Amino acid sequence: MRKVLLATCLGAVAAFTAGAATANDELIKLSQNPKEWVMPAGDYANQRYSKLNQITAANVGKLQVAWTFSTGVLRGHEGGPLIVGNTMYVHTPFPNKVYALDLANENKIIWKYEPTQDPNVIPVMCCDTVNRGVAYGDGKIFLHQADTTLVALDAKTGKVAWSAKNGDPSKGSTGTSAPLVVKDKVLVGISGGEFGVQCHVTAYDLKSGKQVWRAFSEGPDDQIMVDAEKTTELGKPVGKDSSIKTWQGDQWKIGGGCTWGWMSYDPALNLVYYGSGNPSTWNPKQRPGDNKWSMTIWARSPDDGKARWVYQMTPHDEWDYDGINEMILADVNIGGQAKKILVHFDRNGFGYTLDRTNGELLVAEKYDPKVNWATKVDMDKSSKTYGRPLVVSQYSTDQNGEDKNTKGVCPAALGSKDEQPAAYSPDTQLFYVPTNHVCMDYEPFKVSYTAGQPYVGATLSMYPPPGDTHMGNFIAWDAKTGKIVWSDKEQFSVWSGALATAGNVVFYGTLEGYLKAVDAKTGKELYKFKTPSGIIGSVMTYEHGGKQYVAVLSGVGGWAGIGLAAGLTNPTDGLGAVGGYAALRNYTALGGQLTVFALPGS
Amino acid sequence: MRKVLLATCLGAVAAFTAGAATANDELIKLSQNPKEWVMPAGDYANQRYSKLNQITAANVGKLQVAWTFSTGVLRGHEGGPLIVGNTMYVHTPFPNKVYALDLANENKIIWKYEPTQDPNVIPVMCCDTVNRGVAYGDGKIFLHQADTTLVALDAKTGKVAWSAKNGDPSKGSTGTSAPLVVKDKVLVGISGGEFGVQCHVTAYDLKSGKQVWRAFSEGPDDQIMVDAEKTTELGKPVGKDSSIKTWQGDQWKIGGGCTWGWMSYDPALNLVYYGSGNPSTWNPKQRPGDNKWSMTIWARSPDDGKARWVYQMTPHDEWDYDGINEMILADVNIGGQAKKILVHFDRNGFGYTLDRTNGELLVAEKYDPKVNWATKVDMDKSSKTYGRPLVVSQYSTDQNGEDKNTKGVCPAALGSKDEQPAAYSPDTQLFYVPTNHVCMDYEPFKVSYTAGQPYVGATLSMYPPPGDTHMGNFIAWDAKTGKIVWSDKEQFSVWSGALATAGNVVFYGTLEGYLKAVDAKTGKELYKFKTPSGIIGSVMTYEHGGKQYVAVLSGVGGWAGIGLAAGLTNPTDGLGAVGGYAALRNYTALGGQLTVFALPGS
Repeated sequence: MRKVLLATCLGAVAAFTAGAATANDELIKLSQNPKEWVMPAGDYANQRYSKLNQITAANVGKLQVAWTFSTGVLRGHEGGPLIVGNTMYVHTPFPNKVYALDLANENKIIWKYEPTQDPNVIPVMCCDTVNRGVAYGDGKIFLHQADTTLVALDAKTGKVAWSAKNGDPSKGSTGTSAPLVVKDKVLVGISGGEFGVQCHVTAYDLKSGKQVWRAFSEGPDDQIMVDAEKTTELGKPVGKDSSIKTWQGDQWKIGGGCTWGWMSYDPALNLVYYGSGNPSTWNPKQRPGDNKWSMTIWARSPDDGKARWVYQMTPHDEWDYDGINEMILADVNIGGQAKKILVHFDRNGFGYTLDRTNGELLVAEKYDPKVNWATKVDMDKSSKTYGRPLVVSQYSTDQNGEDKNTKGVCPAALGSKDEQPAAYSPDTQLFYVPTNHVCMDYEPFKVSYTAGQPYVGATLSMYPPPGDTHMGNFIAWDAKTGKIVWSDKEQFSVWSGALATAGNVVFYGTLEGYLKAVDAKTGKELYKFKTPSGIIGSVMTYEHGGKQYVAVLSGVGGWAGIGLAAGLTNPTDGLGAVGGYAALRNYTALGGQLTVFALPGS
Repeated sequence: MRKVLLATCLGAVAAFTAGAATANDELIKLSQNPKEWVMPAGDYANQRYSKLNQITAANVGKLQVAWTFSTGVLRGHEGGPLIVGNTMYVHTPFPNKVYALDLANENKIIWKYEPTQDPNVIPVMCCDTVNRGVAYGDGKIFLHQADTTLVALDAKTGKVAWSAKNGDPSKGSTGTSAPLVVKDKVLVGISGGEFGVQCHVTAYDLKSGKQVWRAFSEGPDDQIMVDAEKTTELGKPVGKDSSIKTWQGDQWKIGGGCTWGWMSYDPALNLVYYGSGNPSTWNPKQRPGDNKWSMTIWARSPDDGKARWVYQMTPHDEWDYDGINEMILADVNIGGQAKKILVHFDRNGFGYTLDRTNGELLVAEKYDPKVNWATKVDMDKSSKTYGRPLVVSQYSTDQNGEDKNTKGVCPAALGSKDEQPAAYSPDTQLFYVPTNHVCMDYEPFKVSYTAGQPYVGATLSMYPPPGDTHMGNFIAWDAKTGKIVWSDKEQFSVWSGALATAGNVVFYGTLEGYLKAVDAKTGKELYKFKTPSGIIGSVMTYEHGGKQYVAVLSGVGGWAGIGLAAGLTNPTDGLGAVGGYAALRNYTALGGQLTVFALPGS
């Protein structure tokens, strides 16, 4: 098989380059058609916004279920379907099935892809057997399997066009993230921060699957594809060896910084944006230094992978405030000035607004008032700690030390938000953020690295913030000022991706299993429906036959739902989530279903 | 545990008897309240009819999904939920979870029961890991687990009150059927006809779980609880050794005749009705004789288990025309005479109407015109073959012999109907029958009996009848005349239980996953909705908060869906069902979900 692929590729590089612009143009064009949904987030900007407006705040109360589809797989269903033409593509967690459904013919199954994967990958997946979805481009569907195989499927037949191995599960690498097709390449990150993987983003040739570039999150400059002079942080060149000098010895080789969030792309700037995750291990005492460039927002050229700018949000992480959450791109007016902004709701509880052209930090404010591990992010450009969070000693697990239980840290390790993607409406200019409202006790302990074995080094408990009983909020956020506009309480973390629409309606799902619709301006609940299982999928919308549909995957799981998903009952299992979310079992059970909604009438 | 149970029971027999009438009275009263659904079939008569009439033929087109629930289990979901008060009880296939859901509190999970069972029972289940539901009585929920444990759960807490072992899975016995609570006893059958089990119906004391009586389907008179003089067939005493004299040697000891269908009960006559299944092995050459009382309708007293009358439909079975299908009880007027009838749609393709007081045969007609293995049932009382089917030599697998492929037999082994229960409406006086429209090639071969190993002895292929492409019909049947009143074609077998309602609407599900509503008088399709997975569950209805709901379990599987359920692809696997139903994979995938429907508005 490999030989065949190589033979096919020989001498075809020129052709690929020629095809490149076409693939990108097609995608950009398709993503501008609100009837389809050709990327995991709907568009390159990761806005998760649709111009469809048949369903409005006035009529959403009449929404009903139009049709449903069971995926045949249990455990956590993250992400959501794509719509390309008359076909819907639905993916599942491990074993990573993909279905092509015919919207024009009673949603019949056109094809199904089901890879054969070694089930030994399951225990290597830190936080459930999730997969965040497939990508489309150049007539192919791209899937990043749990075993890190990146596979290109013919979109019409489901036949494998090519496959590439993106990592080594026996050393702790797994595939959970959705790829992103940019120009003539498909980009994909990798998971394994709890196994000491040196994580990366890798670009593969769209037509052949040949690796074009790979950029690590930590390591020597050539490995991280950083230019000491041209790559900047907060306006200044990062300098030589910017990463390795912030690690002790060779620790960067097992340094984490994984890359399993939703990537975004600005075609005009030709920059790809993504976040890198926590440094390994979770015991901060074992890895002195800033641990660059873990916990970092990256802006890279998709062409050669070179980093334009970086911004490290949580230097020397002490809480697993993994920086992988998505970057949402928007063009707004701030103080009379047109700004191309990037907005990021970090696990650490701060909502960041940056100028995405150069990485300038515009806003950094808490998007959950209970966040307590840092007083603020230093916004004083003249300060030595400019851009850094000001850590509260009481909550510093490094200062408190190994085998000491640091209590009452907010947010918990799964952050004020985790992978669940937020949405942005250009109409209201508000960001709609599914959040976790959870605190923790965190006790680091010494851990040895063994390839392929967990490299965590901390014991956790999770619970609601003091004085509260609810564990989640769905909020509207003004990224220009860094303020919460409205906030809806939820009993559990909102672990579902949000959707904003031109109908002035915002949708999200709950861990109990409700799909909810709220007024985009006020947050008033307008509709709710109990789907078969808890929702950690991302809501999306499309139009078919003149009718607007809203669709979401149910299937409780993910980190928050790991107790149910993996059948765990020990409260500190699942890195504290089992105990924190124990009450979930009173509301829902495992599932794997697509529920599609529409207004009544033909 | 056993010691505790025995100690509890000592000297309590009188008390149990005293409690008996109460439990029965409660059940009869509850079953007369159309708002609840306290037995698997809704009532003792197995009519699957509801007096609720909020949903009518005129408004059912507006039906919508009210709420849903995932069971967390895949594979075939047969049966349906019970409603007792404000609680819904939902069961699953292996591992046989039971959920109690709170209808008064957003359908939250009140309790969940999940037994620990040896997974080695799975390969012993001939036709998927199905379970047909739980029974209620005396404040307990009764579940017959796959491993044949009959367990009594406190209906309020889910705690185990008692458990009893009904068979030995290591010898091929499994539990798949719903128990039936009658007076102070809970009755339950057993599965294992493909493993040479000598099958039985057993009565357990409702309060203690102590076995009260056990009646086998074949064997000496005391084992089968038949009185040579008082037990009759077609009006005549069965005589001494009526069973064992129809078997060669000790073959009755591995003779099958299993009992996994839906039982019914007539409180006025104090008789329980059920069918016994195929004789083992499927190779008729190996077991000469009529193989009584396999393939038989039984009328027994629930008090002492004694048989009042029997009727063997398919003596010396050559096609696996298992007689387990349910008996539906109705009171009608035939030719000016009030008759207490029992109606039974047998796997062999004949619809039987009997006088249930005495077992008199009133009608026996084909309910699928393609049935060809017999010309008719001999209705001439003066004939030596009175009551017997007149077998067509061409389709006799016994006459054609071992290792000969008898082609084109209709129906196929899974019958013109299998376990999927029919419904009866007293309003229209019609029976609504989910049917299979499937033929087969059948090749018997010699097989040796080894305890716990398959004892089948035949290879099968299945396909639609010549000239047809559809494999199912949903029909309305006049049991007084033995005529089809209307017939709706379905692409696949209708493997779901039907529901008739006072709203002049009849409901059923399809293997593709549609819930359908049709006009009870005309069969006109009034509504359909695609549920997450193929439906082999039984539709039921209830009222809560002044609103009528219709509910059904999805979850493709069962014999027809075994290819999908067990991941089989060889066409002759699943005793021919894998090939026959191969196209199902284009329509649906595995699931396990409850979908609950209602009309819009509060």
